[in-house]
Amino acid sequence: MPESSSRPENEFFHVLKTQQFDRPLLDGLCELTTAIRKFAKHKEGLLFLRSLLAHKRAMLYFTQPSTRTFLSFNNACQILGIQTSEIRDSSTSSEIKGESLLDSLRTFSSYVDVIVMRTKESGLAESAAKLFDRTHRRVPIINAGSGKDQHPTQALLDIYTLERSFQHRGGIDGKTIGMMGDLKRGRTVRSLGYLMKNYQDVKLVFIAPPAFRMEEDIKGHLRECNIPYVETEDMQSVLPELDAIYITRIQDEHDIAGESSKVDTSQFKLGVKHLSSMKKDAVIMHPLPRRDEIHPDVDDDPRAKYWRQERNGMWMRVAILTKIFKIDHHILHANLLD
Amino acid sequence: MPESSSRPENEFFHVLKTQQFDRPLLDGLCELTTAIRKFAKHKEGLLFLRSLLAHKRAMLYFTQPSTRTFLSFNNACQILGIQTSEIRDSSTSSEIKGESLLDSLRTFSSYVDVIVMRTKESGLAESAAKLFDRTHRRVPIINAGSGKDQHPTQALLDIYTLERSFQHRGGIDGKTIGMMGDLKRGRTVRSLGYLMKNYQDVKLVFIAPPAFRMEEDIKGHLRECNIPYVETEDMQSVLPELDAIYITRIQDEHDIAGESSKVDTSQFKLGVKHLSSMKKDAVIMHPLPRRDEIHPDVDDDPRAKYWRQERNGMWMRVAILTKIFKIDHHILHANLLD
Amino acid sequence: MPESSSRPENEFFHVLKTQQFDRPLLDGLCELTTAIRKFAKHKEGLLFLRSLLAHKRAMLYFTQPSTRTFLSFNNACQILGIQTSEIRDSSTSSEIKGESLLDSLRTFSSYVDVIVMRTKESGLAESAAKLFDRTHRRVPIINAGSGKDQHPTQALLDIYTLERSFQHRGGIDGKTIGMMGDLKRGRTVRSLGYLMKNYQDVKLVFIAPPAFRMEEDIKGHLRECNIPYVETEDMQSVLPELDAIYITRIQDEHDIAGESSKVDTSQFKLGVKHLSSMKKDAVIMHPLPRRDEIHPDVDDDPRAKYWRQERNGMWMRVAILTKIFKIDHHILHANLLD
Repeated sequence: MPESSSRPENEFFHVLKTQQFDRPLLDGLCELTTAIRKFAKHKEGLLFLRSLLAHKRAMLYFTQPSTRTFLSFNNACQILGIQTSEIRDSSTSSEIKGESLLDSLRTFSSYVDVIVMRTKESGLAESAAKLFDRTHRRVPIINAGSGKDQHPTQALLDIYTLERSFQHRGGIDGKTIGMMGDLKRGRTVRSLGYLMKNYQDVKLVFIAPPAFRMEEDIKGHLRECNIPYVETEDMQSVLPELDAIYITRIQDEHDIAGESSKVDTSQFKLGVKHLSSMKKDAVIMHPLPRRDEIHPDVDDDPRAKYWRQERNGMWMRVAILTKIFKIDHHILHANLLD
Repeated sequence: MPESSSRPENEFFHVLKTQQFDRPLLDGLCELTTAIRKFAKHKEGLLFLRSLLAHKRAMLYFTQPSTRTFLSFNNACQILGIQTSEIRDSSTSSEIKGESLLDSLRTFSSYVDVIVMRTKESGLAESAAKLFDRTHRRVPIINAGSGKDQHPTQALLDIYTLERSFQHRGGIDGKTIGMMGDLKRGRTVRSLGYLMKNYQDVKLVFIAPPAFRMEEDIKGHLRECNIPYVETEDMQSVLPELDAIYITRIQDEHDIAGESSKVDTSQFKLGVKHLSSMKKDAVIMHPLPRRDEIHPDVDDDPRAKYWRQERNGMWMRVAILTKIFKIDHHILHANLLD
Repeated sequence: MPESSSRPENEFFHVLKTQQFDRPLLDGLCELTTAIRKFAKHKEGLLFLRSLLAHKRAMLYFTQPSTRTFLSFNNACQILGIQTSEIRDSSTSSEIKGESLLDSLRTFSSYVDVIVMRTKESGLAESAAKLFDRTHRRVPIINAGSGKDQHPTQALLDIYTLERSFQHRGGIDGKTIGMMGDLKRGRTVRSLGYLMKNYQDVKLVFIAPPAFRMEEDIKGHLRECNIPYVETEDMQSVLPELDAIYITRIQDEHDIAGESSKVDTSQFKLGVKHLSSMKKDAVIMHPLPRRDEIHPDVDDDPRAKYWRQERNGMWMRVAILTKIFKIDHHILHANLLD
């Protein structure tokens, strides 16, 4: 019997798509993530966290390889004491000749308490969730990236990094956020654009060459939600206004005929020389991996938050797991006593 | 010094082949598995199990890939707190150029307390066990499938699933058990046929096309043990008599020249339309993975036990590990107090 | 801020090269390793060890595959309760297209508390250590073999095995140690040769065919340190004098045009027939894997220490980890109370 019908508002069972998160959920996850990070600062706190789900086991099913996301989830599980099994090889499943993908997933669900999955196929996480919702052994699914469209936990960690960076300035509300690079095909900037509707008085600035402009679907969504946005090719002119700049690499893995190489992207890279134009408390983000969109010398600037952003991803995934297993109140409660 | 000489009857050190299990051992393992499953129903029980072998480490040496069996053992280890190292790649060992397989295995034995091995080579588990029995550091071996012949833990989980399904009807004794599919090359049905000698008044019904009939060695063994069996190609006519039907897929990975594709197997598949012919408390089993031998719509029928059978495999492997490390009495004793 | 400047003498943060270990450090590590092995003899001791670093996580980054060293480190981490993530595939990093190796390593450092790395590239461990020393999140690096030159933990386990084997005979000081095989390209014998300067009155005997003689750099180093050495092609004539013989295989993976196959190595193999010429308390070592340099029948002789040497590697790595995380005093102190 699916629980979702009777589920209180601020809860979730599966994590399937960015759209399932509203403002109360986002705020709750951010609060939880901050509480978790406090525990992680000392041995006792870490041992407390590791005791919380020491009776649970997870399957990390990564048929689309992703070292970064895999490690983030693997360590998030370990932080909570969850033991993991992994499939990281796209060819592993072919060995089970003739078995349907849903049968394979049901097999995994026999052994574990949660499945984290990253696949090339769009929609597989949702199909699996639907299947499990019908069975006696209902196991939560976390979508760790499926196809081109959905990577909800990345969107959540981006929101957390923004909220956290602006914690003494009223959070995301009222901020001007730039997005630069391949806005057309960048899953992260698209998701972030979508989630902005949850925040008040946000302005967006899209900085991209004409070939990589933000797609019409997101822009239409922003107009519907009355979120103002500007499009420009001139980074320098907008840098002084930005509270945050979210930079992405050119997603040339989606090229059909090497078209990316014909685009002049030289004006869409951040170097040390640009830092003086930026606000003193601005935030520089990047989902990583980077190529040359951000010069390594920028790393030493305190406004560079992308390494912290990466680590935040692990903490946000810890938070998500505690909510799935409904032990988040243990953390918030213990934190209050602290 | 090998312990086996002085070992009490109801114990074992290595798990090498189906034939080493007699009725007292089978009954003991089934009782143990049921006790373990009770603990696994709540957090305290799971934490108790995880504390039992938290000082042990296992090597999962899977040079013949098998996602299903690997995950089952990996999770069984985790349930008991055993930490695991894994080799899942058949090419990994080739890197150690020129080292003998027995040297490699002795290396692994340096680091861990038990080796679970699945190999293409028949008999390798037995050779390793013999080698270790001569050394100072004797490490138990569990055969998780070697070559075409032995896969003893699969046979044990099949027995457990039958026993458990018939728990209110006197267990396996007196039952009529059908086996359908590729009986000639199916390792599981062959092992199960062998183990039937341990049970009273069992009748077997073999349902297979002529090309895939049960082999003469098993049938000879059954005649010797006075176990009646029938062979048929007509599933429909025998379905009403069966207490259990164990269905297997065509093992075409053993084909030499695609001969399987020439066999008409259309009459050896179970669909929803057959369910009304079966006993109300019949049991449908399959070692998985399946192809089209059982229609997915059958999954919703309460008699379909194959997903449970798969999960039973994990619990049976937990039971085996507790017996190897002689902590089974902790579980049985704690269970009595419960 | 690098801590190394203010670090007390008997400590270290990174483990990068054999040369960083002097006599007090070597003696301290040997004492620690012996203390750890005592704990490992019973369940309570093992559970004590496993509690020591249960709040830590490690990354095993093995882009140059090495089953043996990987397993040794993986189990060393597990013994201390450290949870591990692994990269064992040289192709994994290529998936992160265009990311620099140092960015990848910094990513890993986001998630874990220590990185153990084995790479084809020489010097990568040192570059990573330098990078981390500049960042807020300084993570220790353990070099588990980089390129042709450095494999410091192997050298340490060799020292420990010698010290331990000679524990009732005054340790390594004053011993005559033979090294046989491919001395030219064997990383282990070269490191061991280097470390000999830390011991008093040691004599070295190099037994190799002309093509594989010890290189001039090591011999020059020995002359500088006044360590006497002899070179010979006649194993039989020197065997009676040796307190230890360290045998290595021909490193033909470094061949350019199969030159190893042209060298007659038949006189540089140890068989059962040679054992009677050796001292009663001599020590036979080998870094493994072996080919035919030592006949398997030699394994049964009590002087054969190579299997123990392999297991010592795991214990020495446990010792190294406890020193890196500065919990070694817990072990030494608990040991005193014992």
